[in-house]
Amino acid sequence: MIKSGLNMSRRIRRTPYTNKVEEFGVTGFTVVNHMLLPKAYKKNVEEDYWHLKEHVQLWDVSCQRQVQVEGPDAETLIQKMTPRNISNMKIGKCLYIPLIDENAGMINDPVLLKVDNNKFWLSIADSDILLWAKGISVGLGLNVKINEPDIYPLAIQGPKAEDLLASVFGEKIREVKFYNFGFFNFHGTQQVIARAGYSKQGGFEIFLKGYDLGENLWDTIWEAGKKFNISPGCPNLIERIEGGLMSYGNDFTSENNPLECNLEKFCTKDSSHNFIGENALNKIREEGIKQKIRGIIFDGGPCPTCAKPFPVFKDKVQIGQITSGIYSPRIKKNVGLSMILKDYWNIDEEVKVLTSDNLMRTGVITSLPFPK
Amino acid sequence: MIKSGLNMSRRIRRTPYTNKVEEFGVTGFTVVNHMLLPKAYKKNVEEDYWHLKEHVQLWDVSCQRQVQVEGPDAETLIQKMTPRNISNMKIGKCLYIPLIDENAGMINDPVLLKVDNNKFWLSIADSDILLWAKGISVGLGLNVKINEPDIYPLAIQGPKAEDLLASVFGEKIREVKFYNFGFFNFHGTQQVIARAGYSKQGGFEIFLKGYDLGENLWDTIWEAGKKFNISPGCPNLIERIEGGLMSYGNDFTSENNPLECNLEKFCTKDSSHNFIGENALNKIREEGIKQKIRGIIFDGGPCPTCAKPFPVFKDKVQIGQITSGIYSPRIKKNVGLSMILKDYWNIDEEVKVLTSDNLMRTGVITSLPFPK
Repeated sequence: MIKSGLNMSRRIRRTPYTNKVEEFGVTGFTVVNHMLLPKAYKKNVEEDYWHLKEHVQLWDVSCQRQVQVEGPDAETLIQKMTPRNISNMKIGKCLYIPLIDENAGMINDPVLLKVDNNKFWLSIADSDILLWAKGISVGLGLNVKINEPDIYPLAIQGPKAEDLLASVFGEKIREVKFYNFGFFNFHGTQQVIARAGYSKQGGFEIFLKGYDLGENLWDTIWEAGKKFNISPGCPNLIERIEGGLMSYGNDFTSENNPLECNLEKFCTKDSSHNFIGENALNKIREEGIKQKIRGIIFDGGPCPTCAKPFPVFKDKVQIGQITSGIYSPRIKKNVGLSMILKDYWNIDEEVKVLTSDNLMRTGVITSLPFPK
Repeated sequence: MIKSGLNMSRRIRRTPYTNKVEEFGVTGFTVVNHMLLPKAYKKNVEEDYWHLKEHVQLWDVSCQRQVQVEGPDAETLIQKMTPRNISNMKIGKCLYIPLIDENAGMINDPVLLKVDNNKFWLSIADSDILLWAKGISVGLGLNVKINEPDIYPLAIQGPKAEDLLASVFGEKIREVKFYNFGFFNFHGTQQVIARAGYSKQGGFEIFLKGYDLGENLWDTIWEAGKKFNISPGCPNLIERIEGGLMSYGNDFTSENNPLECNLEKFCTKDSSHNFIGENALNKIREEGIKQKIRGIIFDGGPCPTCAKPFPVFKDKVQIGQITSGIYSPRIKKNVGLSMILKDYWNIDEEVKVLTSDNLMRTGVITSLPFPK
């Protein structure tokens, strides 16, 4: 694999933190929602992993764009978009919701924030849910306003995140429960801070409103973070895979339904609400799913970068493909996520993994998250 | 600006030609529609420019994803999505169509292909029109099937493109008129080939159906192209700007309406058909637009890469920003595209351009495409 550069243009949007991220030595980006997401700094992914598990990190996750749905029909529209029942949701809550299309194919898996009675934010993965929501709304003639507000999430992740944010925003931050948010003051502005984030090490996401405040916020957190050994960081591939955190576009796509993605618990079974794809999903449930996302632990020394999926075999039959995979310094073997066909998805099933260095490695199916 | 790498993952989709592109020495990519678009090879952009104007190039433009709309309501749906009247469109034709949202904001500018009476392809720029089209269709309850078919455009651009393709697909290719397409045989498959492409040097786009045929097609064109001095290439920034070819996300966004983008000729004025955003567009037309895309020629030696827009001033007032800009070896000055406020958009108006090397340069407003 040739290492290639990313050619920059206005279309690949910068964030309020991109200047800072460059100043702090970013070495690699990816693109999510037409926006830069830092993916590597000077620390290698293993150093970064241990740091994240012990200290605290500052992540530019502005690419988690917010789709704001506001108006009398806001709840109606969002309820149409997800099999998860949101009718009892309270203001100040976050909910992880699968979004599916008319064929029950996954088109995103955002975190939904209820900001007010008729106002929601969808904090999205990589697809233009703004267009999906607007298309449905235009077609149905709903009374909602849908837009992408001037909001740029900054994540503070790691075990010292709470102490750090308490030193900046006050002790009240400690009262915010997991998947809840509160409003906190920053230079005279009210900012939403949620206890959430794309790691299993604990932490917060600041939904900064106001592009121009970005560098100020970065600097404020950075200065206060020095005594907590803060580092610039990004979603860590080792930690995410170990934690069984899936990535839309990587580990599942619109070809997959939520039941295959272990999201059954977020799919209402009763007919308490109607949603797009309901009939298709019911049919899939009746017929039973044909594959499911599992963990695989596989040996043979650290595997190469999983830029292309690694095929998974049983007795020369391909039974899946590892879509995210990396060496775990904790488990001291490689770990990966893979859709696995039904006949082979049992825990402890022995399989073979063909990595891009042409090594056929021995692996074993595990549950998710990976066992401690 | 730090030069950063692009971190690869399955989410940034490879194309059927990516292995070839790597073998041929790609040095930079960008991401369009969640897919890799090669943006640089070993030749620099100026060498590449002269080559494109004299010879022929092979471009992997698979990222121009096709949104296929099929069924009894196909024309109805597409007509809802664009202010351009498509009712007289014939099979075998291509049409450039602006797509706008309910506020008349541009959300894409695809080329529409009429493949059959109830079957269209939208060959899209960088936004998930698949979700927009499906959302509208679900909301309105239309009788259409919408999907992203297994199609990967490969462009053959440059003055020798016709001779090259005639040597591969036969003399009949010469009869295909500009913005028309025909069906041609490739290894027993019927393939759509259009006279179109993202340059002003002439050429074709092969809408290859069948991922697995990709490398075979690349090799076939490459071998036949050797005697025409073929080179691997990509949309060339100098040639595109000189030709006044706009890029969605760079030169205009959903903040802009089609009238600002010089697309008035593609916006029906009579009420021959209804479309989303019609009222908003009529209101904008009545009130008059406030800015418009123009060319700017500016001096001071070759400008740096335009990764962030260059602000444009008149007497210290910012009147626009150059969103695509580069040195033209033909004009021997820099050229750029910029939205310019109404009071300043007259041809030959003198302006100042502040480039990212902190040089304030003198420029002049021109029409588009740039004068010969």
